[in-house]
Amino acid sequence: MGSRREKTQTLGLIGFGAFGQLAARTLAAHFDIRVCDPARAHTTLPCGRSLRMTTLEDAAGCDVVVLAVPVARLRHLCGVIAPMLRKGALVLDVGSVKVLPVRVMREVLPADVDIVGTHPLFGPQSAASGVQGHKIVVCPVRGDRHRQVAAFLRHLGLQVITDTADAHDRELAVVQGLTHLIAKVLVGLGPLPDRMTTASFDLLREAVDMVRDDPPTVLHAIEVSNPYAATVREAFFTGASELQQRLDM
Amino acid sequence: MGSRREKTQTLGLIGFGAFGQLAARTLAAHFDIRVCDPARAHTTLPCGRSLRMTTLEDAAGCDVVVLAVPVARLRHLCGVIAPMLRKGALVLDVGSVKVLPVRVMREVLPADVDIVGTHPLFGPQSAASGVQGHKIVVCPVRGDRHRQVAAFLRHLGLQVITDTADAHDRELAVVQGLTHLIAKVLVGLGPLPDRMTTASFDLLREAVDMVRDDPPTVLHAIEVSNPYAATVREAFFTGASELQQRLDM
Repeated sequence: MGSRREKTQTLGLIGFGAFGQLAARTLAAHFDIRVCDPARAHTTLPCGRSLRMTTLEDAAGCDVVVLAVPVARLRHLCGVIAPMLRKGALVLDVGSVKVLPVRVMREVLPADVDIVGTHPLFGPQSAASGVQGHKIVVCPVRGDRHRQVAAFLRHLGLQVITDTADAHDRELAVVQGLTHLIAKVLVGLGPLPDRMTTASFDLLREAVDMVRDDPPTVLHAIEVSNPYAATVREAFFTGASELQQRLDM
Repeated sequence: MGSRREKTQTLGLIGFGAFGQLAARTLAAHFDIRVCDPARAHTTLPCGRSLRMTTLEDAAGCDVVVLAVPVARLRHLCGVIAPMLRKGALVLDVGSVKVLPVRVMREVLPADVDIVGTHPLFGPQSAASGVQGHKIVVCPVRGDRHRQVAAFLRHLGLQVITDTADAHDRELAVVQGLTHLIAKVLVGLGPLPDRMTTASFDLLREAVDMVRDDPPTVLHAIEVSNPYAATVREAFFTGASELQQRLDM
């Protein structure tokens, strides 16, 4: 996958939102990329080599198929592309949760394609100057090509963490759940001060700025589609309410 | 204050907690420092020049007197040292709120001493490798020596923000109020993940680590002694509760 010998492998990228565009820029040097976005008929493409807009059928017929649509649309998409996939293709998703997408892909995609779940723990904001050094989670689903995928991602300079979808969702319920909850609450308070600030507040504001422009579908995936998110949220709100009572006594 | 000509000025540092010790390290090269801590009879001093433990009377009789005790103890301390202060002395506090300490110092300290309120927007954690580049707020209270103080602090490499106690408390109610609230809630949730983390979560955790070891007196000053803290807290908890309802629908 992506080595010199396989340079001409085709990669179908389905979904061309903020993350899909980052993926295209990152992968353009390694694959013949075919982009399709069911939600964007008239997208202007950035000037990248090996990058052209195509039909869903063409993108789904590639050697490697990356599903970069919102988690809530994954089941529908899998149903539509199932008959279009090439035998022996490798299908990957990039969703912010893993238990649900992995189950959907396993159930809906044909038995003769390999499947790998991934979650890049970065986005257009945090990886603005490149993906090197950032983390990505890889969940083996069907077949053993997750090893090739992990090796390729390491070659890109990423830190690869291979684990189960369940372990991912447990840990990310805290990591992303709390970050997005706190960001959402702080953004709701209006513009944050930037003059008399402490180092810790500067870090907090930087964290908020990194996720405040994430599309609503990301918050939805993190807070609603992660089976462990409600428990973490509950603990956060309970802790907040206990602290409120203590301070207002 | 602190220039070559005035190198032999005496500075009485009253209070030798974590911040008092940082102040002593930072100021030792510029003053003949006399440290007194009413709460620590047997403190082991770090080896610093111009640094010796002394009586409250001796510390309060210096050219410059820095009050580094918890805000809640400031009124009592001012009452005790009022008759010990030298005519023309400069008295400064370093508390995390300013409206209350400034009022107390103005009311309780004798009319013939100059007074400046300060709030160093850093602590032993954030300024572990030095105070250079950090921020400090200076509030003029009585006399015009706040200008000398500001010039000296700039000479130390600090960014000086001069403003009123009221402006300080309004802005810091958000800056410190929110940071400490969030840190307190997160610390209460137990150990935070450090494996599958995003850049924004890493920043959040770093912010929490910076304030998690602050003494309880700091949280008390920030949340209880700042007249604007309750309003900010209320807005945060209301925002959290609204978000909770939206997500649990």
